[in-house]
Amino acid sequence: MTSRSSVTTARTSSEGRAVARTQTLLKGENGIGTVRRTTLPGGLRIVTETLPSVRSATFGIWVNVGSRDETPSLNGATHYLEHLLFKGTSKRSALDISSAIDAVGGEMNAFTAKEYTCYYARVLDTDLPLAIDTVCDMLTGSLIRQEDVDAERGVILEEIAMTEDDPGDCVHDLFAHTMLGDTPLGRPVLGTVDTINALQADRIRRFYKKHYDPTHLVVAAAGNVDHAKVVRQVRKAFEQAGALGRPDATPVAPRAGARTLRTSGRVELLNRKTEQAHVVLGMPGLARNDERRWALGVLNTALGGGMSSRLFQEVREKRGLAYSVYSYTSGFADCGLFGVYAGCRPSQVHDVLKICRDELDKVAADGLTDDEIRRAVGQLSGSTVLGLEDTGAIMNRIGKSELAWGEHMSVTDMLTRISEVTPDEVREVARDILGQRPSLSVIGPLKDKQAARLDEAVA
Amino acid sequence: MTSRSSVTTARTSSEGRAVARTQTLLKGENGIGTVRRTTLPGGLRIVTETLPSVRSATFGIWVNVGSRDETPSLNGATHYLEHLLFKGTSKRSALDISSAIDAVGGEMNAFTAKEYTCYYARVLDTDLPLAIDTVCDMLTGSLIRQEDVDAERGVILEEIAMTEDDPGDCVHDLFAHTMLGDTPLGRPVLGTVDTINALQADRIRRFYKKHYDPTHLVVAAAGNVDHAKVVRQVRKAFEQAGALGRPDATPVAPRAGARTLRTSGRVELLNRKTEQAHVVLGMPGLARNDERRWALGVLNTALGGGMSSRLFQEVREKRGLAYSVYSYTSGFADCGLFGVYAGCRPSQVHDVLKICRDELDKVAADGLTDDEIRRAVGQLSGSTVLGLEDTGAIMNRIGKSELAWGEHMSVTDMLTRISEVTPDEVREVARDILGQRPSLSVIGPLKDKQAARLDEAVA
Repeated sequence: MTSRSSVTTARTSSEGRAVARTQTLLKGENGIGTVRRTTLPGGLRIVTETLPSVRSATFGIWVNVGSRDETPSLNGATHYLEHLLFKGTSKRSALDISSAIDAVGGEMNAFTAKEYTCYYARVLDTDLPLAIDTVCDMLTGSLIRQEDVDAERGVILEEIAMTEDDPGDCVHDLFAHTMLGDTPLGRPVLGTVDTINALQADRIRRFYKKHYDPTHLVVAAAGNVDHAKVVRQVRKAFEQAGALGRPDATPVAPRAGARTLRTSGRVELLNRKTEQAHVVLGMPGLARNDERRWALGVLNTALGGGMSSRLFQEVREKRGLAYSVYSYTSGFADCGLFGVYAGCRPSQVHDVLKICRDELDKVAADGLTDDEIRRAVGQLSGSTVLGLEDTGAIMNRIGKSELAWGEHMSVTDMLTRISEVTPDEVREVARDILGQRPSLSVIGPLKDKQAARLDEAVA
Repeated sequence: MTSRSSVTTARTSSEGRAVARTQTLLKGENGIGTVRRTTLPGGLRIVTETLPSVRSATFGIWVNVGSRDETPSLNGATHYLEHLLFKGTSKRSALDISSAIDAVGGEMNAFTAKEYTCYYARVLDTDLPLAIDTVCDMLTGSLIRQEDVDAERGVILEEIAMTEDDPGDCVHDLFAHTMLGDTPLGRPVLGTVDTINALQADRIRRFYKKHYDPTHLVVAAAGNVDHAKVVRQVRKAFEQAGALGRPDATPVAPRAGARTLRTSGRVELLNRKTEQAHVVLGMPGLARNDERRWALGVLNTALGGGMSSRLFQEVREKRGLAYSVYSYTSGFADCGLFGVYAGCRPSQVHDVLKICRDELDKVAADGLTDDEIRRAVGQLSGSTVLGLEDTGAIMNRIGKSELAWGEHMSVTDMLTRISEVTPDEVREVARDILGQRPSLSVIGPLKDKQAARLDEAVA
């Protein structure tokens, strides 16, 4: 990822406090915002993107911890903790937290992934100070009482049950297991009924103390926001909570590493009494920082990214074999996955798998047509720009960039990089990725005879 | 709904064509757009909302037909037809349609409801002409060939199966059945396996000819759009397709009527092998144009509209009995529904139902506290404004307003009306609506003993 060098650097010192460092990372133009970063003494990073034309703001805090940081017995602790942060601080009850944002019509939520956790509130710009105060208090002052852990346990067990009732979602967890096994990255973010039942307040509290250190946090705000004001308010909130950390501490580096996944030809089937069979056919993909990801993005779009994509045309448009069929990529710090999802009645599952496998093989052998590449480049470019009108999406972009890369790429540079993808690059990445022997995960009510034929798709 | 009187009226005549009537319905200010409407000879209405500060545009066409316009044997035809419009015209194949919008990174989709159908495309503003051409061609020139009907039948059967696999969604269809029975409004939008298997091209084609008349259509565009240009392009597209209709025709009036639903104390259970039981406990609500809807909106928000709402607090926050619990209203032309949804493991279902019923009874008897009303008013106001940053949401608002009301309300007027809701109005509507004996729909793996106790919730 190209880093745009800083345009200005400012050091602010007030009342003898340690010095914060502020940089303008991207200059705004044509409705795209200006991105600035301040690093406080103690290592807390604050990034903002200012878009004066909107009336709203989204404020978020990203934490460099996810389910891959859990030991087997802690599986689900990151997500459990995320729930517990809504249960109250020494200053606010759970009801105080939720009613603060509800009362102004804002939207507050959080999500936990394999490599990060994020808490955010989207509000009218005039309510930004309220959002900052509330989210900062949640992050720095959570009580994590045993009684809250016990009450929330039921909620999380319900969330697990709800996910089990959504096989189109659940099959992606199964695919991670098929590809990565019982490893930190292969285990589910929600944990299991057993690990959740075993977790107690003291262990979660230790996990919180260890991972919610200012050096592990990125504060991100986007919309009609003033960078200096956001920095002042966040600094004050963390200072009052005694959460700024040791003045000489510096932010943790982005996760790094590289490993080669070798899973191939594995088949996992969960027999469930659903109406549809839900399948993911896939293989190892690319790590987040692999330079080939731009070509893979084009390939993924052309193969299964829209209604005009190969898979949609072959499986749904021409043959009516599925309602939902698409391909996707997921990139982690050290590895990645590429998958094709389809949902169809069990009687169609072999036809669907055969068509998907054939298309994967064809593209691995021959690449895409120039026409498909042109269309995919246009699709990626247009959707990138269209995706940046929402302050929530922009907050996600800058927060995640800071945490995962430590640097930021302008939209213009992204569009340039997408447009520079060549047919040769696409052919190469298609051969490297799609040319691997796939694995397969299935949830559905397959009969023994149907189940026995699943191997054909990964032969 | 208050109609803002027209600010300007213009009649344009060119080359002796029949005269179009253009009105400015709402004057823009503070980032809120200007709303204009042109009615073409033949009855086609075109409404736009211009927001020069964004870079995108959403273009949609609304059709005054939904599943409630179907006879029993036509159940699912509206939605089937919606799918078929993507299958091609004399000018464009299915691939031409999807690749046109994909190639510019746009998002094209459609949805069918009980009282309307909508087709739309969201694109960068520079791609608006492409979106207009494509969507207008789909609407006016669909071929509806038997071979397309046959290929798409599989897709729709898959969609039905997919919905069956989502019990948290499916239970709302069941609730409509519980409350409205086997009536046009009570039947599912998707139809059933039997009706879909029986539908053939000729019947769907007749349905299309009957309902896709310009007097039944509303064209809506929002974002960085120029009203006159949109009108010119839409007129030309419809003219070339010979779809402008008889010059003296006028738009159909909004659906009207009033009827009293008397369903009470009914219980319907679908036994399914899911992890959670999914319940809707509810009663007759208000028709779309009932003046009490503002007070009901406040009531609904305070009761089950957010994390600080009564139901969330009582069911999830304090007792951890569910992950998802909320209340909702749906208003049709002549009647409405009010419902409380919760998803929980079967062992908790009676506790959850008891708490929900108790809260409904309490609020019916005592209304809400002033504090709850204040918070709900703030929540509705803030979320109304926050909801209008997306051109898709704005297109929906103006298109639906035109079709359902024939008039438009400014955001300022809406906020005023919300803020004017009094505790007495809320108390009254709570007594009228929540004071009715509820009915209950459940999907889940209940044992006979558990099922036998469901009656307690509607006693």
